[in-house]
Amino acid sequence: MSQRKRRVDPNQPIVLPNDASEEAYLIQRGWACVYKLLPDGSRQVLSFSLPGDIVGLPGLSLEGASPFWFESLTEVEISSISSATLFRGLASEPAVARAMQWSVALESAILIERLISLGRRSALVRTAHFILELATRLSLIGEDTRRGFDCPVNQYWLADALGLTAIHLNRVLRELREAHLLTMRSGHVEIHNFEGLRELAAFDADYLTPPKRRH
Amino acid sequence: MSQRKRRVDPNQPIVLPNDASEEAYLIQRGWACVYKLLPDGSRQVLSFSLPGDIVGLPGLSLEGASPFWFESLTEVEISSISSATLFRGLASEPAVARAMQWSVALESAILIERLISLGRRSALVRTAHFILELATRLSLIGEDTRRGFDCPVNQYWLADALGLTAIHLNRVLRELREAHLLTMRSGHVEIHNFEGLRELAAFDADYLTPPKRRH
Repeated sequence: MSQRKRRVDPNQPIVLPNDASEEAYLIQRGWACVYKLLPDGSRQVLSFSLPGDIVGLPGLSLEGASPFWFESLTEVEISSISSATLFRGLASEPAVARAMQWSVALESAILIERLISLGRRSALVRTAHFILELATRLSLIGEDTRRGFDCPVNQYWLADALGLTAIHLNRVLRELREAHLLTMRSGHVEIHNFEGLRELAAFDADYLTPPKRRH
Repeated sequence: MSQRKRRVDPNQPIVLPNDASEEAYLIQRGWACVYKLLPDGSRQVLSFSLPGDIVGLPGLSLEGASPFWFESLTEVEISSISSATLFRGLASEPAVARAMQWSVALESAILIERLISLGRRSALVRTAHFILELATRLSLIGEDTRRGFDCPVNQYWLADALGLTAIHLNRVLRELREAHLLTMRSGHVEIHNFEGLRELAAFDADYLTPPKRRH
């Protein structure tokens, strides 16, 4: 499909809220995120986008105006696809339809797990679960992450994804470190005990895995 | 599109977790809900389904096995549509494709607002926001809800949707009642001050409204 490629510096807005954009974005390289700023100035991160992710799909049917910020965390390379092109592809190419459908399903599955975390998992379990989610998503695009991974998400972003204050998250990260489960440093997550972490979080990666790749 | 219709008694499972169902469900009448039971026995409600809602769409691409319960709250009438029929409709009928797309976008928008509520809104604001969401969704299917509405969601379900304990929710509902904003009784929500409630929740209904019906 015809695409327009673009490179974006770190920490730059890619789409502003209420931008009447009619495009979806395929992340080619780097990390980005989608978040909402609330009237009181607090921020809720909705998703972190990794290479291979498509951003803006369900929002497309809103025909423009999304209330969210879409911003780069690292340098990113993105391709934008107009909604017209996308709809033509959906109608005429079953492989495109399948890929879009999986992308929407994955985005929804990730949102649902986060909702469950915020609603019913303790700050400790929720943080462990989220780190395992990132590790799994990165492993699905070819990184070996069982011992850790480079992570441009700093503690402020992480707190705003997990519904925690920075202070509370800091305490949780110390607890995880002292339990020899993981250490989060600037730019890197080191996993000391993958199985222990998975047990703590009762983490099951099925929701992240296309059906054909399971087991 | 060809559909199979079915009537379900109140409080009955419609789809069990890990049921290899290849169908989506259109709610014709009544209220239902989708939830997850966690290993520790706690429950997170993901969505309440009202007439006109389609349940199971993004899950469809998972080709079966969803880890969620789909259960009736009242007596419901549902039509089930097989995924094969749905895909044929998506490919051949632009109106079907539009409707599906809006349905997926709406489901995603509702999930996102709940995520924001659980992450960054106080229990009081989150409860007010949720009641206004229900009122707005019902008004979009023809009910006049500015003064209240019949609501089969009891306080246990509501707490499990809002990430609160039943005791905490009870305190919040008392606060809302004493502020003359709303009273929630068995089976009914009475809204005393719609504008006051909207102000408290900083509620903006745009996320629930198809673009053409806004303003």
